[in-house]
Amino acid sequence: MSLQDNPQQPKKATIVVFAGSLDKVMAAFIIATTAAAMGIETTMFFTFWGLTALKKGGPGECKRNWMQKMLALMLPRRADSLPLSQLNMGGMGSAMLKKIMAQKNFSSLPELIEAAQDLEVRMIACQMSMDAMGFCKEELIEGVQIAGAATYVGEARDGQINLFIG
Amino acid sequence: MSLQDNPQQPKKATIVVFAGSLDKVMAAFIIATTAAAMGIETTMFFTFWGLTALKKGGPGECKRNWMQKMLALMLPRRADSLPLSQLNMGGMGSAMLKKIMAQKNFSSLPELIEAAQDLEVRMIACQMSMDAMGFCKEELIEGVQIAGAATYVGEARDGQINLFIG
Amino acid sequence: MSLQDNPQQPKKATIVVFAGSLDKVMAAFIIATTAAAMGIETTMFFTFWGLTALKKGGPGECKRNWMQKMLALMLPRRADSLPLSQLNMGGMGSAMLKKIMAQKNFSSLPELIEAAQDLEVRMIACQMSMDAMGFCKEELIEGVQIAGAATYVGEARDGQINLFIG
Repeated sequence: MSLQDNPQQPKKATIVVFAGSLDKVMAAFIIATTAAAMGIETTMFFTFWGLTALKKGGPGECKRNWMQKMLALMLPRRADSLPLSQLNMGGMGSAMLKKIMAQKNFSSLPELIEAAQDLEVRMIACQMSMDAMGFCKEELIEGVQIAGAATYVGEARDGQINLFIG
Repeated sequence: MSLQDNPQQPKKATIVVFAGSLDKVMAAFIIATTAAAMGIETTMFFTFWGLTALKKGGPGECKRNWMQKMLALMLPRRADSLPLSQLNMGGMGSAMLKKIMAQKNFSSLPELIEAAQDLEVRMIACQMSMDAMGFCKEELIEGVQIAGAATYVGEARDGQINLFIG
Repeated sequence: MSLQDNPQQPKKATIVVFAGSLDKVMAAFIIATTAAAMGIETTMFFTFWGLTALKKGGPGECKRNWMQKMLALMLPRRADSLPLSQLNMGGMGSAMLKKIMAQKNFSSLPELIEAAQDLEVRMIACQMSMDAMGFCKEELIEGVQIAGAATYVGEARDGQINLFIG
């Protein structure tokens, strides 16, 4: 019997967060927290640029080669400092979006991340991207698991909502 | 009994249109109209930059704060004037794509939007994005509903095809 | 009886590859090959910029109008020369990613494409995009089929995992 046959069974959602821009990561967390609040078992899989949304900031103490060090310098230091995917204008666009969100009493990205944690959204960081970009677990916020693409596909296979946010 | 068990039951598709570029919005409408023409109940959910695809142009008379006014000046005025996501070259790329599409007798974006309306594709504008960007219903084309993320997730939960076009 | 009712039946996945950047195309092939290796019948549908990932390089002998010739000059010549979607820095970012992947013994994009072919991932090039961009079958790698949006929607309708990588 399939999940669909039994509406009592919780449904599943997965979201690949490939993008590292404020607007797209916020969209990912808004969908994830909405789904989780509606009783849907939700998994977010962070890969490539999306990993930066999980950084807690502070001094990185991971072992990196020179290329990874350069990359770390160029990437945002934490979720709070992500740029917009468009009209970023050197950070001004991003600052304006955050200001408007605050005026309207919408949740900020750090608040959305906290809500996701409270709602038990499962957050997975892609092993391969961590290795390639030179990220280590110590740099990431609490509660993030590290796993590979097979773990993601295994979840998505049983999901009703599977999105790729790139 | 699930939808899958009964092929007579219409299937459902949802498309989140987050992107505001001509190429991505056209892809969204091509998939949406194809699905609707195949008997699939199709919902498009427009959010962030995607909202610009629903603007009918003409003077905007919505109440906006100064940041929203600036944003309105920077965004395209209607579906017809969206840029390309790549190789836009100050609008030349976008103009060339439109010219090629016309030469090949492919539908333009305004024609695809009209086809979607005729095929009863449900178009929803994201409430929160409308508020944040300072858009109002009067600026949008006919027949667009306004609703929140929970409405989207509720539709997607029952959908067989759920895409995020970002 | 639905596919879900019978775990023995192979599940299906579809991935629309709309993006033409190295990082996104690699993500598409990593998910596709992982899914195929897990016994999921996987279809990739290449459209717009994504078509460049299927080019085998070498002299193009397709008939093109002048706009299509200009476009062909501006687009990468084959999968091996795709740019990054971010931090490309005139190709340096792309070269660095490839170098890191090689150091870590991760598969390169050409290797992932070959793996997809070996795993019988079905690759479809979008007819309409081919026509608009002036691509012809002779330019594409072996084994690619050409079909339209209805073929894609028909596959996705029965898919459990349907992603749009844009």
